[in-house]
Amino acid sequence: MKKIAVFCSGYGSNLQAIINAVKRGRINAEIGLVLSDRVDAFALVRARRAGIPVLFADPVALPDREEFARYVCRQLTARKIDFVVLAGFMRILAPYLIRRFRNRIINIHPSLLPCFKGAHGIREALSHGVKVTGVTVHFVDEICDNGPIISQGSLKIKEDDCEQSLAKRIHKLEHRLYPEAISLLLEERLRVKGRKVYIDG
Amino acid sequence: MKKIAVFCSGYGSNLQAIINAVKRGRINAEIGLVLSDRVDAFALVRARRAGIPVLFADPVALPDREEFARYVCRQLTARKIDFVVLAGFMRILAPYLIRRFRNRIINIHPSLLPCFKGAHGIREALSHGVKVTGVTVHFVDEICDNGPIISQGSLKIKEDDCEQSLAKRIHKLEHRLYPEAISLLLEERLRVKGRKVYIDG
Repeated sequence: MKKIAVFCSGYGSNLQAIINAVKRGRINAEIGLVLSDRVDAFALVRARRAGIPVLFADPVALPDREEFARYVCRQLTARKIDFVVLAGFMRILAPYLIRRFRNRIINIHPSLLPCFKGAHGIREALSHGVKVTGVTVHFVDEICDNGPIISQGSLKIKEDDCEQSLAKRIHKLEHRLYPEAISLLLEERLRVKGRKVYIDG
Repeated sequence: MKKIAVFCSGYGSNLQAIINAVKRGRINAEIGLVLSDRVDAFALVRARRAGIPVLFADPVALPDREEFARYVCRQLTARKIDFVVLAGFMRILAPYLIRRFRNRIINIHPSLLPCFKGAHGIREALSHGVKVTGVTVHFVDEICDNGPIISQGSLKIKEDDCEQSLAKRIHKLEHRLYPEAISLLLEERLRVKGRKVYIDG
């Protein structure tokens, strides 16, 4: 069985959706590690409750991004991790790690990329006045929120939406899309060709 | 009854959708003018067939963008045009005209703005590898494809889509969204506040 590591920095609602999908057999993998760059991330509590090994990768002890990546990479290798799933991980990974796990690290972003990259995708969609936004699952490459797109889902913005009400619907969509994409990744059905991702079978 | 002018440069399939919507009473307005910057635009044939006054605004005779705008503005004023609808009009309008018709000029663009601005929205969405794209109706301001968004519709990109197959679905969506938006504009139900457009009633 394939082993995945989930990287989180916060509340871990996507982690929970992944844990649930594993339990229900919708994702055929073992979560071999939950890694956080914040010691107080609630995601770590969720992982411990589910009996998953946790690791706090301390960015104060590892202030250099390349050193941080090398440390993380050693941990992943030692634990025989096949794929890395970023789930609200608010740190940019050094090219060293991305090269070592080329097309084996995926991320979820709360907008229809390439629109509204960065840490405030929901807020920026609202303030730009778009009527449709969504969620993107993509491979991680050396540029932030740029890698080949695996799947996207859209939703309508309502006239009275605030950041909170919109975030609620975005997260609901994320919790559906992410386990689906992870499952395709694990089944090795995703084929990357340039910027395009094809789904086999 | 309000009078609209439709500006086209080419085949005029959105113009045809507007003509049809007027005929069926879905748009309550008179098309007072179809203007083209290309003498061979098929849109002009469509307009003549429907008995709509046509005007060829010759960019060779009016090479200066500001002069072009002043000429067009005189024509619109003389014909008592209330609103301008851009439908595949491939020329950037000078600020002079945009100021004179502030929030009274709308455009349709074949992508989910602010993604894939410019003349190749469909092609660029495909080559970027997005899985969801769409259509945007927006007010025209001084910056190309930038004005406040009135409505958007999304559609999924299929794995075997080429530019032509995707364009076909995009245009179908346009022909539905544009008459709806024009109708709201004519009923003066669109309220612009900063970058956001609210629909009254």
